[in-house]
Amino acid sequence: MKVVIIGGVAAGPKVGSRIYRLCAEADVTLIEKGKFLSYAGCGLPYYVSGVVSDQKELMSTPIGVVRDSVFFQNVKNMKVLNRTEAIKVDREKKLVVMKKVDSQEQEEIIYDKLVLATGATPIIPPVDGIKLKNIFTLQSLEDSEGIKTALLEDKANDVVIIGGGLIGIEMTEALVEKGCRVTIVERLPQILPILDWELAYQVNQHLEAKGVKVRTSTTVTAFRGKDKVESVVTDKMEIPCDFVVLSVGVKPNVILAKDAGLEIGVTGGVKVNQKMQTSDPDIFAAGDCVESINLVTHEPCFIPLGSTANKQGRVAANNICGIKDIFSGVLGSTVCKVFDFNVARTGLGEHQACKSGFDVVTVLSPAPDKAHFYPGAKLIILKLIADKNTRQLLGVQAVGPGDADKRVDAAAVAITAKMTVDVIANLDLCYAPPYSPAMDNLITAANIVRNRMDGICTAITPMQVKEKIDRGDDFVFLDVRSPGEYEIVHIENTVLIPLGKLRNSLSEIPQNKEIITFCKISLRGYEAALILKAAGVTNVKVMDGGILAWPYAKQVKK
Amino acid sequence: MKVVIIGGVAAGPKVGSRIYRLCAEADVTLIEKGKFLSYAGCGLPYYVSGVVSDQKELMSTPIGVVRDSVFFQNVKNMKVLNRTEAIKVDREKKLVVMKKVDSQEQEEIIYDKLVLATGATPIIPPVDGIKLKNIFTLQSLEDSEGIKTALLEDKANDVVIIGGGLIGIEMTEALVEKGCRVTIVERLPQILPILDWELAYQVNQHLEAKGVKVRTSTTVTAFRGKDKVESVVTDKMEIPCDFVVLSVGVKPNVILAKDAGLEIGVTGGVKVNQKMQTSDPDIFAAGDCVESINLVTHEPCFIPLGSTANKQGRVAANNICGIKDIFSGVLGSTVCKVFDFNVARTGLGEHQACKSGFDVVTVLSPAPDKAHFYPGAKLIILKLIADKNTRQLLGVQAVGPGDADKRVDAAAVAITAKMTVDVIANLDLCYAPPYSPAMDNLITAANIVRNRMDGICTAITPMQVKEKIDRGDDFVFLDVRSPGEYEIVHIENTVLIPLGKLRNSLSEIPQNKEIITFCKISLRGYEAALILKAAGVTNVKVMDGGILAWPYAKQVKK
Repeated sequence: MKVVIIGGVAAGPKVGSRIYRLCAEADVTLIEKGKFLSYAGCGLPYYVSGVVSDQKELMSTPIGVVRDSVFFQNVKNMKVLNRTEAIKVDREKKLVVMKKVDSQEQEEIIYDKLVLATGATPIIPPVDGIKLKNIFTLQSLEDSEGIKTALLEDKANDVVIIGGGLIGIEMTEALVEKGCRVTIVERLPQILPILDWELAYQVNQHLEAKGVKVRTSTTVTAFRGKDKVESVVTDKMEIPCDFVVLSVGVKPNVILAKDAGLEIGVTGGVKVNQKMQTSDPDIFAAGDCVESINLVTHEPCFIPLGSTANKQGRVAANNICGIKDIFSGVLGSTVCKVFDFNVARTGLGEHQACKSGFDVVTVLSPAPDKAHFYPGAKLIILKLIADKNTRQLLGVQAVGPGDADKRVDAAAVAITAKMTVDVIANLDLCYAPPYSPAMDNLITAANIVRNRMDGICTAITPMQVKEKIDRGDDFVFLDVRSPGEYEIVHIENTVLIPLGKLRNSLSEIPQNKEIITFCKISLRGYEAALILKAAGVTNVKVMDGGILAWPYAKQVKK
Repeated sequence: MKVVIIGGVAAGPKVGSRIYRLCAEADVTLIEKGKFLSYAGCGLPYYVSGVVSDQKELMSTPIGVVRDSVFFQNVKNMKVLNRTEAIKVDREKKLVVMKKVDSQEQEEIIYDKLVLATGATPIIPPVDGIKLKNIFTLQSLEDSEGIKTALLEDKANDVVIIGGGLIGIEMTEALVEKGCRVTIVERLPQILPILDWELAYQVNQHLEAKGVKVRTSTTVTAFRGKDKVESVVTDKMEIPCDFVVLSVGVKPNVILAKDAGLEIGVTGGVKVNQKMQTSDPDIFAAGDCVESINLVTHEPCFIPLGSTANKQGRVAANNICGIKDIFSGVLGSTVCKVFDFNVARTGLGEHQACKSGFDVVTVLSPAPDKAHFYPGAKLIILKLIADKNTRQLLGVQAVGPGDADKRVDAAAVAITAKMTVDVIANLDLCYAPPYSPAMDNLITAANIVRNRMDGICTAITPMQVKEKIDRGDDFVFLDVRSPGEYEIVHIENTVLIPLGKLRNSLSEIPQNKEIITFCKISLRGYEAALILKAAGVTNVKVMDGGILAWPYAKQVKK
């Protein structure tokens, strides 16, 4: 069996390695346009920052062997043609036409099975001045070398990152650590569109606390400069800079597939079935060039990630070798380090869930990630998105200095299994004080969702409260924390009655006004609402997530 | 509705708090024999070590309010009778007879619903000298104060911990941190029976590296001393000591339940249904006094844990208030910090799975917990236990300095959902270099299990290899790592042929002998086996987990 693989970064080498393990006699050839093979693209921001010191580490196996052509030949029995571009697939003759990048020589290669692992390419917006020097993307080792050179030779200091998505945020941290002054320019009203607004805003504030300027709802209109870029022009301001990182997204590389007449999905990625087979059963595709299925909505999506590429590569290889295997889809699980914050999410966001027709219930639940008495316990704010009809969990987001990825990974498994919040609330997760509260954050949040669904607690989101304030609605905004907590930080125009004193202060509460209670995380706010209801106050709501999740201005003790 | 709750540590207060939230008009009384209420028993080892500095922190809410009788009355509307012992339940009259611990006065209290949250008590072995001073258990705040006093006043230095279970191990770390010389005496052949032997042995070695003496298969026969304990006598040796911590397990407190004629389960715990109802529908029970159901085997089990107590308390309260809720059972999920190691497990161990009749396939998979090129990536050894017939995951254990609990929590969700290893292998878990490898450790381990089940890789456990060596079997024990790795650490009587040179060294390999390959983690070992098979060697096996999981003597470079 002759297998030809096009693309040598993540999915391609995975397919080849797995085929060799299943079918040692297969004749596998891998074609890669670039010089480097099988490097960890996700590690590039850490190479730029110096956290990873040597380029070779990104191209090595865990025991330090560089994955070059010789390695693949000797260890994986795979022929590697690098600096070789596949330019045409002839499906009738079952051959690939390829061209040496250096000599421009053309050659043909026959296949029984072909694998497209052509990846994705950064989107370059068609803006004036885009060809100026020192405008980088972050796709290849060459890109990261370019940025490192700019930092070193040009002593570049002022950087504009265009696009506040994952790569933009990772690059922000990397460049701040190199001593740069960074401005993020984002066209949308928020950074990190993988998060709902109120959590993205927590990250925004953390970035600003680290000295990063974040400019949302701002569109780049041009780049100015003589030879090198000198400023970024936007619809709102002009920002002087030494260099620019473009991270406005990637698009799947599908030209070969399209030219060969293979079906392309609605998201622009190559359409594949669960076996990772394209519309031609002898051609498979995997990694950043393919369209996936969202496991919750069953709708097509395009979420290119190294983790997905590896899994898809393995599934493709299994099916090529006659072992039945399926890749069902993705949840868009993502994690990202942002200075001292961990940011993670899986499943559907609130907006996405509403758009998909679910009867959405959400909860904001801030809590320490360990037993609260254990030193080093750190805050995470969890947001759960669930469906009232089926009671199934649809999505989880987590932001904060605490251990966010653990809760989101557990949630990803639960969403895959279509678990209800009732089952999640009684999951047997590991507990010991150095690792989690006795009721894990995910379990507590699931219980709050259940309370909401069952009408045990009437909640209002911070965004709804802010709207009321802005509209000038007449209501009592009741803070039930202690005076000491209030002094450290509070929200303007709130009334302070500590929970322990509420029973004896009921006369101060107007019976016929709307009352919105909160505390640090809104557990005491919830208990306050119960006391008020028992005392005959009818219109009481608890503000979701308390002051910790309040994403607007706070009065902080100086 | 009059609700009486007996027991004020974990499950009891949870029941009371939840009832108040659901049904503010309920009349709730909580009876507690001790002085202290609602304290975090799991935090006691950290209070002894000084990691948690103030006793009050263990009795406080996350915002620092001490949960005393006044707190429960004011905030939870719950009447608390502490230093009050329930001595009899009269089910016909629906009343509890109780006695003040100080005055010995008796009183009766009527109930509509009764909740038994009587907890568990440390087992005290009936051994000569057990009444000597300075023999402690670790159940209550008073116990930990006793230990702290012994440390302070007696300047105690030499400690014997009897029982190498969770509490014994946590206390070991606490006391070593206080400067003590600790010896653990364990009756069984291994410490931490929640783990399979080869992983428990990794923890054993780590303890010894920290200066702890571990004496397994050793039974205590007496304590010697005049007033205070001066030595522990065992069947093998006598160990001088300044004090002793007894941690040989706990037994459920069921005397009240038994005397009242309630059904007791086979494990000795109070038998309850999924609503946490005892054999009397008006009496509920929750926490350390009840028997649970193992979610994998559906057999009864007794696994007292604070996390379970909280969940069961909530379920009991919901059902008391007419909200349908069920507690299905537990997986025995556990996590424990042992110096620099994280130890976690869920589901069935290998032995337990075999005994329960599953067709067991296991895998040892050591790997870094983050992208291998990311600084601070640390090793974890995962063991997966799965069923060949259903392909379902049955249990997971993880040991090492890396992030173990995250993988075990995800596995706990997967086991609850009865997921197959095939589904687990394609889970969309969060990936970024600071958090996990591109293929998460759990996913890689699931893929190795699949390879085993599908006959793609023939494996042999380190224990089976050791048996072969001890029997004097004739086989080639082939290390395919690099000479540099070999020099640092190797196993005796192995042959070294680095993987990259194997194709050219096939003449050195006898074709008709059994060959057992391995490397650091046995991925290269697996590739070596493929090369050998392709070269016509028929009897090749890969040693599970490589040298990292080899739990026997190794030759280390001095």
